Amino acid sequence: MNDSKNASHNIVRNRFFEKKHNFLTVKNILQITESSTISEEFDSLEVSDIATVKNANEREITFVNSGQYLKELQNSNAGFCIISPEFLPKISSNVIPIINRNPYFAYSKIVNHFYRERSTDFAGFTSIHRSAEIADSAKIAPNCYIGRNVKIGNNSKIMPGAIILDGCEIGDNCFIGCNAVISFSIIGNNCEIFNGAKIGQDGFGFVNNQGINHKIMQIGSVIIKDNVTVGANSCIDRGAIDDTIIEEQVKIDNLVQIAHNVKIGRGTVIAGCSAIAGSSEIGQFVQIGGSSNVAGHLKIGNFVKIAGMSGVIRDIKDNDIVAGIPAMKIRDFHRINIKLTKLLNKQ
Amino acid sequence: MNDSKNASHNIVRNRFFEKKHNFLTVKNILQITESSTISEEFDSLEVSDIATVKNANEREITFVNSGQYLKELQNSNAGFCIISPEFLPKISSNVIPIINRNPYFAYSKIVNHFYRERSTDFAGFTSIHRSAEIADSAKIAPNCYIGRNVKIGNNSKIMPGAIILDGCEIGDNCFIGCNAVISFSIIGNNCEIFNGAKIGQDGFGFVNNQGINHKIMQIGSVIIKDNVTVGANSCIDRGAIDDTIIEEQVKIDNLVQIAHNVKIGRGTVIAGCSAIAGSSEIGQFVQIGGSSNVAGHLKIGNFVKIAGMSGVIRDIKDNDIVAGIPAMKIRDFHRINIKLTKLLNKQ
Amino acid sequence: MNDSKNASHNIVRNRFFEKKHNFLTVKNILQITESSTISEEFDSLEVSDIATVKNANEREITFVNSGQYLKELQNSNAGFCIISPEFLPKISSNVIPIINRNPYFAYSKIVNHFYRERSTDFAGFTSIHRSAEIADSAKIAPNCYIGRNVKIGNNSKIMPGAIILDGCEIGDNCFIGCNAVISFSIIGNNCEIFNGAKIGQDGFGFVNNQGINHKIMQIGSVIIKDNVTVGANSCIDRGAIDDTIIEEQVKIDNLVQIAHNVKIGRGTVIAGCSAIAGSSEIGQFVQIGGSSNVAGHLKIGNFVKIAGMSGVIRDIKDNDIVAGIPAMKIRDFHRINIKLTKLLNKQ
Repeated sequence: MNDSKNASHNIVRNRFFEKKHNFLTVKNILQITESSTISEEFDSLEVSDIATVKNANEREITFVNSGQYLKELQNSNAGFCIISPEFLPKISSNVIPIINRNPYFAYSKIVNHFYRERSTDFAGFTSIHRSAEIADSAKIAPNCYIGRNVKIGNNSKIMPGAIILDGCEIGDNCFIGCNAVISFSIIGNNCEIFNGAKIGQDGFGFVNNQGINHKIMQIGSVIIKDNVTVGANSCIDRGAIDDTIIEEQVKIDNLVQIAHNVKIGRGTVIAGCSAIAGSSEIGQFVQIGGSSNVAGHLKIGNFVKIAGMSGVIRDIKDNDIVAGIPAMKIRDFHRINIKLTKLLNKQ
Repeated sequence: MNDSKNASHNIVRNRFFEKKHNFLTVKNILQITESSTISEEFDSLEVSDIATVKNANEREITFVNSGQYLKELQNSNAGFCIISPEFLPKISSNVIPIINRNPYFAYSKIVNHFYRERSTDFAGFTSIHRSAEIADSAKIAPNCYIGRNVKIGNNSKIMPGAIILDGCEIGDNCFIGCNAVISFSIIGNNCEIFNGAKIGQDGFGFVNNQGINHKIMQIGSVIIKDNVTVGANSCIDRGAIDDTIIEEQVKIDNLVQIAHNVKIGRGTVIAGCSAIAGSSEIGQFVQIGGSSNVAGHLKIGNFVKIAGMSGVIRDIKDNDIVAGIPAMKIRDFHRINIKLTKLLNKQ
Repeated sequence: MNDSKNASHNIVRNRFFEKKHNFLTVKNILQITESSTISEEFDSLEVSDIATVKNANEREITFVNSGQYLKELQNSNAGFCIISPEFLPKISSNVIPIINRNPYFAYSKIVNHFYRERSTDFAGFTSIHRSAEIADSAKIAPNCYIGRNVKIGNNSKIMPGAIILDGCEIGDNCFIGCNAVISFSIIGNNCEIFNGAKIGQDGFGFVNNQGINHKIMQIGSVIIKDNVTVGANSCIDRGAIDDTIIEEQVKIDNLVQIAHNVKIGRGTVIAGCSAIAGSSEIGQFVQIGGSSNVAGHLKIGNFVKIAGMSGVIRDIKDNDIVAGIPAMKIRDFHRINIKLTKLLNKQ
């Protein structure tokens, strides 16, 4: 299941990261992560890669960090799973458990062991690497930096000071604004990335172990489909494992933060200074007013409207209209404000 | 009325945009926008330009997108107005109606037909275009890009990585910070634009027609008067038709968003992470606390104080002090908080 | 007291600013600031420098802008203090008063008189100043600007378009992202400053005198200790007099604003789009959720947790957990929301 989807994902990943090992044995993994398993028979088994619970196949390892993902694990094809001891009774027999009190930290060690960023030899004076493929009709301004293996499509215009790092692809008819930075990203056709937008940097991923904040290597990418706009100085972090995905026709205003692993559906519009926290999924044709916030790991339905300055902390169903902090149905928001006004006027 | 003001506005517009046609006939406009009018007699009339309701003259076309502007239209000198059919009975006889169910979308087609951005031939290696006029006493750091027809005044200092695009003017004694981007802007004397501030990019203007988000070309500029400060990574979008205007002595902190068409009065101070949505007008000597938001199309009086973290969704009169989301008089805000505390302590 | 601490502070200050005078006499200061004192005997006394109330020694001048610092002044070693007339009876006899109705404005004149930024002769074509000390193992990408007397440690990597202005130090194993700007800053080892982060620009310091907003020269620096991360497009302003300090292991997400004079304790984590206003001190291992705000001049204890989208306007004790605008104990926040829901359901 999902093998072809995952394969194409891995092709993207390979543009930016390289695997240091074709596989690790279970024994390797037990040593690297200081974990245990339930039988020595597994020691010599080969683990080919890491993946999310949803996408992992029987040769790959995933991890479960909280009880809420146990259900998803039952439907997963993962061959191996890092899991804390209390969940051990709950996983199915076809998953080999890697037992660790801090699965997220164990995962961070494995990803560091499996992958490294592709090393770069900076392009030098012209600031366009010889390996970059740039369409004849594309315009590259001075003061840009175009990295190795970058591809830029027909009629795209790269403004002064824009930086496109190794391996990125920009489609046809795109506009990349001044001092914008594109890294770890594949961008479709007819996109506008305005001045100073930063696409593809590391997501905010840390795990605390014994009082130390350890960084988790972020090996996803950013996929931006056709006809997308990203406003000035907005930020879109790349995914932690899978990708951050912005679908067709999404319009994002200035100073917006899109955290790692977020998915934004077709035609959704996000006004200035809003923020979508990690791993939330926004539906199609959603309207998000200015300075609104969506907390992490939520699911916002299609055609939802979120009033400006709202704080969304729960899932929202299709077509709902919400307002307030915490966000509630807009009718309730208005009623509460009326009640508060009455309360105020009452002696 | 307003002809001289409008004329000087058009001179600024002409620095950045060029008109493709001296005029369009009414017949042209009906075809471009798929609209109708009330008599074939008007077909050959010439429309010279587009303008706002307030500034349009008898040879120019404007548009009315909602009932709230009908009043303003009655005082307008506009010769032509795009209007939806239900408002037809309400416009005066000296305005020729262009009838369309989506006037805003029709407008976006006309502006695209009338104007194009001036094409650029990038400056090349030195990154200072030969046509730029730079005062002898100005200092330009390395790694900057200075576009065509840019003017930079006495003693101004342009820091490394700053980018000043075609046609912009910077007055005397200005400081343009590292990696700041100035486009479509006229900046007065003694201004500081700090590191990474982005001035003049496209406003967030889209119109949805049959499920597709169409971009509206933004043909205004940004006018910044003397002694203005703009903080690091703040953004000021250029106007959609008229200009975004920042008056003398305005002080704007870091990470502030100023949307298209906003006007900010003399001496106003805006603390960090605040946002002013499109077309709002802020009075003189207003104080806006950090992380506050002013919704679009509002009018904030002179000497108003807005507490930090407020959300303003209604007009505010001169001298008022407000707080809260939605913002209310600060006395009411404190009283509501006291009432809520009482409610909490009551069993 | 504090002399050695202050001495090392001044060494940092001297990297970026130079004193124009070894000392000013009291008479000089009275003339510059249009102030008075209590006896002509003091006129010829020499004032060697300016400093905060806490750090000033008997040859230095400080200022008290509001009654709340009078207590601190009693424990200060300051030899001179700018003070408004009504506080005159309250200062101890070993402090020589400089009497002025607007002490903050008087201070801004003195700091301008004492200091100037070190002038720069830009590095020219290679964009690396000949005086920069760059470790052999450091990698500097093209399109960077490395200023005078900059030091860059072993294995540090400076990405394309990054700008490091005169006098800054970057430790070992650091990553400075694309188009990041580092100025007036000393950065430790193993730090990551992501794309477009702006470190060290002027704090937002203005003083209004007779209707004019006067800028206050900002002569502090930014000190970032080891293992710190600063997210994309985040901003950290340098201190006004003392430094803005970010302790070891602090992790700051994207689009975060850290104002001048802020101090952030070891291991604290700040999620995206949050803002810490001027002079607030955040304890160790504090967790600040996304889009939260901490007002100015507050003290947040150790191990505090601040929920996302909170607005903190009061000090918080160690270990407290808070939420809401204004922020309250999270238990009260939940109870108020339950009460409001009940109110809503009541007829």
